[in-house]
Amino acid sequence: MQNFQITKEFVNEFIDLIDLKLEAEILPILSKLFPADIAELFDQLELEQAVYVTGLLNKEKKVAVLAELEADVRKKFLTGFSPTEIAHEFIESMDSDDAADILNEFPPHAVNEIISHIKDREYARHLSSMLKFHEDTAGGLMGRELIKVNINWTVNQCTEEIRKQAEEVEKVYTVYVVDDNDTLLGLVSLKRIILERASTRVSQILESNVISADIYTRGDDIANSMKKYDLVALPVVDTLNRLVGRITIDDIVDYIQEEADRDYQLLSGISEKVESDDKIWLLSRARLPWLIIGLVGGITNAVIIGNYDDVILNNVQLAFFMPLVAAMGGNAGVQSSSIIVQGLANATLNSNSILSRITREFMVSVINGLVCSAILFGITYLLGQNTQITLVVGISLFASIMFATVMGAIVPLFLDKLKINPALATGPFITTTNDLVGMFIYFFIGNLLI
Amino acid sequence: MQNFQITKEFVNEFIDLIDLKLEAEILPILSKLFPADIAELFDQLELEQAVYVTGLLNKEKKVAVLAELEADVRKKFLTGFSPTEIAHEFIESMDSDDAADILNEFPPHAVNEIISHIKDREYARHLSSMLKFHEDTAGGLMGRELIKVNINWTVNQCTEEIRKQAEEVEKVYTVYVVDDNDTLLGLVSLKRIILERASTRVSQILESNVISADIYTRGDDIANSMKKYDLVALPVVDTLNRLVGRITIDDIVDYIQEEADRDYQLLSGISEKVESDDKIWLLSRARLPWLIIGLVGGITNAVIIGNYDDVILNNVQLAFFMPLVAAMGGNAGVQSSSIIVQGLANATLNSNSILSRITREFMVSVINGLVCSAILFGITYLLGQNTQITLVVGISLFASIMFATVMGAIVPLFLDKLKINPALATGPFITTTNDLVGMFIYFFIGNLLI
Repeated sequence: MQNFQITKEFVNEFIDLIDLKLEAEILPILSKLFPADIAELFDQLELEQAVYVTGLLNKEKKVAVLAELEADVRKKFLTGFSPTEIAHEFIESMDSDDAADILNEFPPHAVNEIISHIKDREYARHLSSMLKFHEDTAGGLMGRELIKVNINWTVNQCTEEIRKQAEEVEKVYTVYVVDDNDTLLGLVSLKRIILERASTRVSQILESNVISADIYTRGDDIANSMKKYDLVALPVVDTLNRLVGRITIDDIVDYIQEEADRDYQLLSGISEKVESDDKIWLLSRARLPWLIIGLVGGITNAVIIGNYDDVILNNVQLAFFMPLVAAMGGNAGVQSSSIIVQGLANATLNSNSILSRITREFMVSVINGLVCSAILFGITYLLGQNTQITLVVGISLFASIMFATVMGAIVPLFLDKLKINPALATGPFITTTNDLVGMFIYFFIGNLLI
Repeated sequence: MQNFQITKEFVNEFIDLIDLKLEAEILPILSKLFPADIAELFDQLELEQAVYVTGLLNKEKKVAVLAELEADVRKKFLTGFSPTEIAHEFIESMDSDDAADILNEFPPHAVNEIISHIKDREYARHLSSMLKFHEDTAGGLMGRELIKVNINWTVNQCTEEIRKQAEEVEKVYTVYVVDDNDTLLGLVSLKRIILERASTRVSQILESNVISADIYTRGDDIANSMKKYDLVALPVVDTLNRLVGRITIDDIVDYIQEEADRDYQLLSGISEKVESDDKIWLLSRARLPWLIIGLVGGITNAVIIGNYDDVILNNVQLAFFMPLVAAMGGNAGVQSSSIIVQGLANATLNSNSILSRITREFMVSVINGLVCSAILFGITYLLGQNTQITLVVGISLFASIMFATVMGAIVPLFLDKLKINPALATGPFITTTNDLVGMFIYFFIGNLLI
C-alpha cells in the first residue's frame, strides 16, 4: 500500500510535539493524516493530548475522527467534553447514522441531555427517532444525508440541489428521484448528470428499477442484497414508500465483518464480542461460559461412565479408546453444524429444504463414518489390539460420527426456524453434547458385545 | 427488501415460457430482472434453456449475468459456446477484472485459444498480463476500466473524457489525475466536477493525498485499507507509480466474505472451500482430512493411556474423568487460537507484540483454569467423589487449560511469523494436540499423586 503507516517512532515524536504544543509543526502532519489514522493515533494518547489535538482539527475532520474511534477509546475521549460541547462540536456536524451510533453508546439520560443541546431542532427530532430503531435494521443503519430531486426537475435543478447539499452530504454517488409526496421513484447516477444537457428532464433519464430497503429490513438481508447487486448505496423507504434515508456500503462492510467475527467467536466458544487487545478479565469472562458448559458436560460424562466401572475393570482396553470416540463425534458435529450455519448466513441455503439437507448430511456421515472406522480397524489390527475391543470401538465410532453429523445439521436448521441465531449451535455446545452421546453409545455397544 | 424475489412458482412459469419460446412474454420479464437475479435463475435452467435466454439479452446485461454466475454453473453454461463465441460474445465486452477471473477458470490451452480470438489486440495483451498476477494481489483484483485525466486539463475536458469512456466504464465515482507519464497525482470526485465551472483547471481541485495500492499489494492489506478509510474504489499503480487499474469495493466485499468463510471452515475442520449445496462426495472429502487427523490423535491417545492400564485398574474412577480433561484442554486451546487468528486477520494485532500477547493469554489461562478447577472441586465434593481422584482431576484440568491456552496463542503467532496462514492452527488440529497433551498430563499427575 502506498500510504502513511503509523510507527512507534512516529507516535513518540508526535507525542513530544504535543507536549511542547508546537502547533506549527503539528498542523502539517495532521493535514496529511486521514481521519482513520488520527483515530488510530488517539488510541495511544492521553486524554488531554487527544483533546488538544482535536482543538487543532477543522470541524469536518474532527467529527470524522470521532466516528472512526474504537468504541472504548471514544468513550474515554468524550469524557473530556461537556454534553453541550459534545452536541455543538460533534453531534451537530456528523452524519446522522454516525451520530446515532455514538449516542447509542451513552446511557439514556445522557443521550437526552446531549440531544437537548442540539440547535437544529429538526435534526434533533430526527436523531431521537433513529435511536428507536434496532441497530441491526435499515432504520438503525441508515443516514438521512442524501440528495433528493423531484421527478419534474431538470438536470440543471439537480446540479443546483447537489450544490446546496454539498456540504452536508459528503459522498454522493447517485441522486434519488421522488414525487411531490417524497415517494421513491428511481435514481440517476452522477455520471448521467454530468453527461446530460442541463435542460434534460429527470423523468427522461431516471432508472426506475431500483432496489430499496424498508425501515425494518434486517441487517443481513441488506448485506446480502448489497453484495448480490454490487451496490454502493441503498435507499431506505418507510411503509408509505417515502424516501427516508440511505445506507452506504462502508457501513455494510463493517457490518459484514462484525457478523463474521461474531460467528467465528461463537464457533470457537467465545460468547461475547471481544478483541485480542481487550482487558484480561473481559477476555476471561467471554470464555468462561463455554468452558463451564464443557465442564458440566464432562462431569455428566464421568457420571455416565461411572455406571460402567465393572465393564472397564473387566476390559481395561475399552478405557483407552474413550477420548477417541468422544472427540470424533465432537469433530464431526462441528463440521456439519458450521457448514449449515454458514449456508444460512450467506443465504445460499434456506430452511425450506430442511429434509434434503438432513438427508445429504446423513449420506456424508455414512461415508465419513465408514472411512474412519475402516482406518481404525486397519491401524488397530497392525497394533495387534484385541479384535473384540476393536469391533466395539469401530462400531461406536461409526455410530457417533453418524449421530453427531446429523444432529449438527438438525440443530441449527431448527434454531433458524425458531428465529434463534443458529450460530449458537456451533462450537463447544455441539462438541459437549456429542461427547456425551458418544460415551453413551460406546458403553451401550460395549455392554452388548462384551 | 423491496425488490423482486425468485420463487419456485416463478421459475416454473418462466421455464414454461422458455420451452414455448414466447419471446414477447419473456423480454419484459428479463428487462425487470437484475443480472444477479438472472444468474440465480440460470442455476435452475437446462443448458439449452440458459443459452436461449442469453440470446435475448443485450450485450451489457449478457456479460453482467455471466460475471454473476456461480463458478460451477458458469463452467457448465460456457460449454454451450465455442471459444470464438466466448471471446466475441462475452470476454470482449466484459470488465477486465471479471474477464480475467473467468479465464482463470479455464485450462491454459483454452485460455490461449479464447484470447487469440479477441479482436482488440491491446485488450488481449492486457488480459494476458493480468492472468500472470496472483488472484490474491492488487494485480489480480484490479480492473483497468477507469477514467484518467491529465493534470493540465480543465473540468470541461474531464467531462468530455467521461463521455468518451462512458460505455466502457460502467461505474464512475472519481476520476484519477495523472501527469504526461501516467504517474498518479491525485483524484477528483464526480461531485466536484459537477459543482466546478467548466474552465476550472484540474490542478486547482485535485485531492493529492490519495491512498493507492501497488500491483503486488496483498488482498487482505487492500481489504483492511478499504475498510479503514471507507473507500469505494482504490487506484493501483505499478513500480514506477504509474496508474494501471482500480479495485472496486464490490470485489473487496466478495473477498472479505470469502476469507471469512474460509477461516470459519478451517476453524470447524473443513479443509477445502465447500458450500452446503455442493456434491456429497465433495462435502465428504473436505471433512475427511481433519477427521483422520483426529482419529490418528485418538489412537495415539489410546497408546499413551495403554501405558497406564495398571493405574486405571487400581483407580477406575480416574477413567471416568478422562474425556473431561481431554475435552477441556481442546476447548480452551480453540478459544485462544481463534482470538489470535482473528486479531491477525483484522490487523488489530501484529506479530511484533508476541511476548505481551502470550503473557496475557497466560494470565487468562490462570484465571479460567482456577475458576474451572474450583467449580470441579465443588461439584465432585457434592457428588461425594474420592478426594484423591478429585485432586488429580482438578490439578490436571488446571494444567491442561493453562497449557492449551498458551499453546493456542503461540502456534498461530509462530505460523504468522513464518508467513503460513495462522488459521491452520485452529480447529481440530489444536483440539487433537491438546487432547493428547491433556491425557499425558492427567496420567503423569495421577501417577505422581496416587
